[in-house]
Amino acid sequence: MSSHHIVRDDQEPALIIANGAACSTELMGQLLEWSPLVIVLDSAITRVIELGIKVDVLLGDFDRGFDPEYYRELQYPLEIVHTPDQNKTDLEKAFDYLVSRNFPAVNVIWATGRRADHTITNITGMVRFRDKLKIVMLDDNSKIFLLPYKYEKWYPKATPISLIPVGAVTGITTQNLKYPLTNEELTIGYRTGSSNEAEADGPVIIEYKGGDLLMMECYD
Amino acid sequence: MSSHHIVRDDQEPALIIANGAACSTELMGQLLEWSPLVIVLDSAITRVIELGIKVDVLLGDFDRGFDPEYYRELQYPLEIVHTPDQNKTDLEKAFDYLVSRNFPAVNVIWATGRRADHTITNITGMVRFRDKLKIVMLDDNSKIFLLPYKYEKWYPKATPISLIPVGAVTGITTQNLKYPLTNEELTIGYRTGSSNEAEADGPVIIEYKGGDLLMMECYD
Repeated sequence: MSSHHIVRDDQEPALIIANGAACSTELMGQLLEWSPLVIVLDSAITRVIELGIKVDVLLGDFDRGFDPEYYRELQYPLEIVHTPDQNKTDLEKAFDYLVSRNFPAVNVIWATGRRADHTITNITGMVRFRDKLKIVMLDDNSKIFLLPYKYEKWYPKATPISLIPVGAVTGITTQNLKYPLTNEELTIGYRTGSSNEAEADGPVIIEYKGGDLLMMECYD
Repeated sequence: MSSHHIVRDDQEPALIIANGAACSTELMGQLLEWSPLVIVLDSAITRVIELGIKVDVLLGDFDRGFDPEYYRELQYPLEIVHTPDQNKTDLEKAFDYLVSRNFPAVNVIWATGRRADHTITNITGMVRFRDKLKIVMLDDNSKIFLLPYKYEKWYPKATPISLIPVGAVTGITTQNLKYPLTNEELTIGYRTGSSNEAEADGPVIIEYKGGDLLMMECYD
């Protein structure tokens, strides 16, 4: 573990570029800088190579007459992973691929915006990887991740914090939120914890007992 | 009921312009053309008036030092509805307002994009109005609405159809979908019916027994 390169490979999150709306080049640049592995999903490669980015893995079902081999030489060395399973989205398959390679963490961009069905499926689908992969989804207005059953982090006063239940989430108790919860339940579509915020500078603590609770740190 | 004006007031959907990403002026123009009432949410008014649109109702909690009175003269006659309840989003309050005025239906634009917490809350929150208000949410890539327990509509072959459960949805049976469902369950985050499509030109039938199932007709 003495090699800087090996430490980066083990510790830093991979980066997945999905097929939704592009983010700012600034956000993308920050994430690319430390990423040991860049995965692009399916035909998003056509938009990604226009940005002059070196891609490591091109993954998809390539089901719309799209020829991934064209990119093999352009992006040499490029690993092409063909994943024809119609029961999973390309993003889920990319998570599976990273789990199989023992990556501990991944950042995901371009997974929101454009098609609403993809956006909602991409965001909520991360809950299935709770114990397998630390996933953070980012766009220009949002940072999204699955909360562990006990979460504690220091936030500045008035930081926007939205708690979005994927299904029903039980036993939620918070500390240092403007609208506190005490052993309460949130249910998607019926009662969510959107648009809360840190009450004061200091640690925000969020605990819950059952279900899957997403944290969204979002800004206008 | 002989007046064209009265028929339009009773039959045509109102239009809500929320505070997410703007849609194309073409989509907005189509929806404005027949809308008997235009409601704008809170500070979105600053973006809406730049487009030269006549607004009927400005609704919000106006909690960020925003002065709605400035717009009363600019948009005369303008009804200003102050809704300070922090337990509901401005969009939910606008739905409540339309229900109180006995509107049967509403189209919603600018409710997706930008902040992911607002997007997911806006989309999934429509399920609470199942029997009160027919809601259709639109953006440049998506048309979203809550399916009744039995739905039937003619679609051209290969029309993209995504079935997104808000929570768990039981007893789903479909006809004329490429990936059919037979008395099956979908659960948000775990198993959704995203990226299905009409198998052939003809009526698609979707039935379900419990829960709330959203239809998303989305295009790249």
